[in-house]
Amino acid sequence: MSQQTKYLLNESQMPRFWYNLQADLPKPLPAVLHPGTMKPVSPDDLAPLFPMSLILQEVSQEREIEIPEPVRDVFQLWRPAPLFRAHRLEKALGTPARIFYKYEGGSPAGSHKPNTAVPQAFYNKEAGVKRLVTETGAGQWGTSLAFAGSLYGMEVEVFQVRVSYDQKPYRRAVMETYGARCFASPSTETAYGRSVLAKDPHHPGSLGIAISEAVELAVQRDDTKYALGSVLNHVLLHQTIIGQEAMLQMEMADTWPDVVVGCTGGGSNFAGIAFPFIGHGLRGGPKPRIVAVEPAACPSLTRGKYAYDFGDTGHMTPLTKMHTLGSQFTPPGFHAGGLRYHGMAPMVSHVKELGLIEAVSYNQVDCFEAGVLFARHEGIVPAPEANHAIKGAIVEALRCKAEGKVETILFNLCGHGHFDMTSYQKYFAGELTDEHYDEAELAMALAGLPSVPEPV
Amino acid sequence: MSQQTKYLLNESQMPRFWYNLQADLPKPLPAVLHPGTMKPVSPDDLAPLFPMSLILQEVSQEREIEIPEPVRDVFQLWRPAPLFRAHRLEKALGTPARIFYKYEGGSPAGSHKPNTAVPQAFYNKEAGVKRLVTETGAGQWGTSLAFAGSLYGMEVEVFQVRVSYDQKPYRRAVMETYGARCFASPSTETAYGRSVLAKDPHHPGSLGIAISEAVELAVQRDDTKYALGSVLNHVLLHQTIIGQEAMLQMEMADTWPDVVVGCTGGGSNFAGIAFPFIGHGLRGGPKPRIVAVEPAACPSLTRGKYAYDFGDTGHMTPLTKMHTLGSQFTPPGFHAGGLRYHGMAPMVSHVKELGLIEAVSYNQVDCFEAGVLFARHEGIVPAPEANHAIKGAIVEALRCKAEGKVETILFNLCGHGHFDMTSYQKYFAGELTDEHYDEAELAMALAGLPSVPEPV
Repeated sequence: MSQQTKYLLNESQMPRFWYNLQADLPKPLPAVLHPGTMKPVSPDDLAPLFPMSLILQEVSQEREIEIPEPVRDVFQLWRPAPLFRAHRLEKALGTPARIFYKYEGGSPAGSHKPNTAVPQAFYNKEAGVKRLVTETGAGQWGTSLAFAGSLYGMEVEVFQVRVSYDQKPYRRAVMETYGARCFASPSTETAYGRSVLAKDPHHPGSLGIAISEAVELAVQRDDTKYALGSVLNHVLLHQTIIGQEAMLQMEMADTWPDVVVGCTGGGSNFAGIAFPFIGHGLRGGPKPRIVAVEPAACPSLTRGKYAYDFGDTGHMTPLTKMHTLGSQFTPPGFHAGGLRYHGMAPMVSHVKELGLIEAVSYNQVDCFEAGVLFARHEGIVPAPEANHAIKGAIVEALRCKAEGKVETILFNLCGHGHFDMTSYQKYFAGELTDEHYDEAELAMALAGLPSVPEPV
Repeated sequence: MSQQTKYLLNESQMPRFWYNLQADLPKPLPAVLHPGTMKPVSPDDLAPLFPMSLILQEVSQEREIEIPEPVRDVFQLWRPAPLFRAHRLEKALGTPARIFYKYEGGSPAGSHKPNTAVPQAFYNKEAGVKRLVTETGAGQWGTSLAFAGSLYGMEVEVFQVRVSYDQKPYRRAVMETYGARCFASPSTETAYGRSVLAKDPHHPGSLGIAISEAVELAVQRDDTKYALGSVLNHVLLHQTIIGQEAMLQMEMADTWPDVVVGCTGGGSNFAGIAFPFIGHGLRGGPKPRIVAVEPAACPSLTRGKYAYDFGDTGHMTPLTKMHTLGSQFTPPGFHAGGLRYHGMAPMVSHVKELGLIEAVSYNQVDCFEAGVLFARHEGIVPAPEANHAIKGAIVEALRCKAEGKVETILFNLCGHGHFDMTSYQKYFAGELTDEHYDEAELAMALAGLPSVPEPV
């Protein structure tokens, strides 16, 4: 080859353990609180929702947690995932920086989400669970859980945020191809959904509402558990395989990132690429800058409050300390549904508070512009969510150009955009505009945060 | 790993040469004829359409033709492509057969088409061509050429068959993301398109019509060439990288196919997987059965006539000897647009006549049923075209079950179905029916084949 573009690991190099950042944190995570007692939840409190194996991963302090062999067998379908050098984008930008991207769009669902959907389905199957119920924003997570459920012969029910259900009809068809059932949320399937519809029959929905609906159904049935596609510690843990592979691949490329960039909605793809590098730095390795890029229309890390809040709108979940816009905040209906969440993963919020990461936000039109530039030079049409990471990486590359610095930039291209072409159509038709939240609504949502007694 | 599912080649194992079956044929291909003189065409006759490097590949008798290094550099984005063992499908079918599939859906366009789009754009760029014009059926080829054009900074114009343009709006958005211009064909952009619309303003279009439109535009402009996504010898040549890789991977899996299955529209993905195995057999290696699967609604190999015919409906192309339903035949609008072509690649037709391959046809509902079974067990949602190959492989696997034979079946999964979810929606809604052509129309189209004097 005249120039190496791809860094590929062989099967035997697929990581055998997930990396748990909790083991290396200088300060432990704040406790998760029971909303009734305001006391830390016990594993038993979570048992109606999750199998015990996942609950134990949620609280584990072990640095390495073994990936079950049957899960690694399924991972072969798309893992190890490639790392690419973006030579053509570098040239187009005229930057001296080296830009690398980890590509997670090669999975059957087209994103990083199967990295956690498969182990979640596996552990639930092992625990005798018959049915999984979940929510989905952009549809990536619902598709992924439907895919994983089909492999294990489990029923899957998905509450899809209505604005996404309407914008992305093909996503539903994929979920049904995998045998799952889909409901537009808010739905009439649950008491909570019906209460939301009673107030506003045209409610666009939100992840927070869809979570409430899924949780409501899960706790009602003995043979059913809930599965979440982001936010929780065990979900972020499963995604660390991205960064673990990337570390091996950066070594193959004989370099190390100066900057690691990921987009953040709930936080899972960001944590996946970033946490192994953060941990490596905390254990004495080099400390790259870690940049979380979020949508300006839903800026939990940059505009939210670090406080205890509910994970859902209907207040059925425990309270976690996180950057939040308030559980009653409904993000505007912009085209990166996977980033439309009022909160941020507690682990990501915690490392932000510890000063281990930076956060920035960009508007969607700028992000689409970055995504189209990327597609025309690198050949992959990115998901709207991933466009935020690309925008972040381009900003860093242009900084390097201005400063004349030869830095290495690594970002996570968490999914392809083949299901998101409606939004590209709008972009090219000039119909895509920047969405803005209502400042008064945000202030009200923040004012409505639950009051939690100071911990002892 | 408890069981190996994936057979992956490393970068250094990517083939450096395409395999040219013409070198090993027991009998040479019939000549291509000039429609005016009925004499064999010369390379110069084709020069208005293609750069000389591709014309020379079209007629080359060399067994190995080098893949240019810059093309291999681009191929790194998705090649070498994985070979998978379909363990879960085997189990679901209860077959003793070993089912392997080569997966070409990992390319940026989601199918095998970039395997030829990239070298075609490369050779045109080298020849100083500024603009490429083409047609597309399912949209896979137009997307692929748009992708390749964007990498080389070339303009791309695509005539998309109207029924596909309407069924697959997202395809157009992808082409535009890559910077291409799209027209629904028949269009008002060309004299031929206008003549078709004058007779039937609601004509659903066909590949044959779209080819005429693209050829018309290409010959009118000095800086513009035509690019074809299937049928021609050089296109099939470029696709042989699929089978060459598969041969290395079958060796890794310590087996060799007893049956090789591919779907056939124009013939390129089929030739890609099959020709290296056919050639290997002709040179003294084992001779697997080679099965071409075509749609019952457009059955050129199984119901067409082996005769000289035009490649397009407007009669602007040379005459080639092939299995054809007649250039005036308009296939019904079924959901595998990539297989809606009246003719068959001359090379594929020739090996059929030589008895080197078999051909079968299946209806679309049966093929979707096979595709959904595959998705639920193997995890990849296949393109409707690829569902034909899956159906063919399943029929072979069930034959092995009935006969108690442990055979090895290899098929080409030429693309994913993420752009084709409309057709899956219809399938699940029970709205997908088998399409049938009109027997009288077929008879008339066959009766209208051009009369060609017997060769000397």
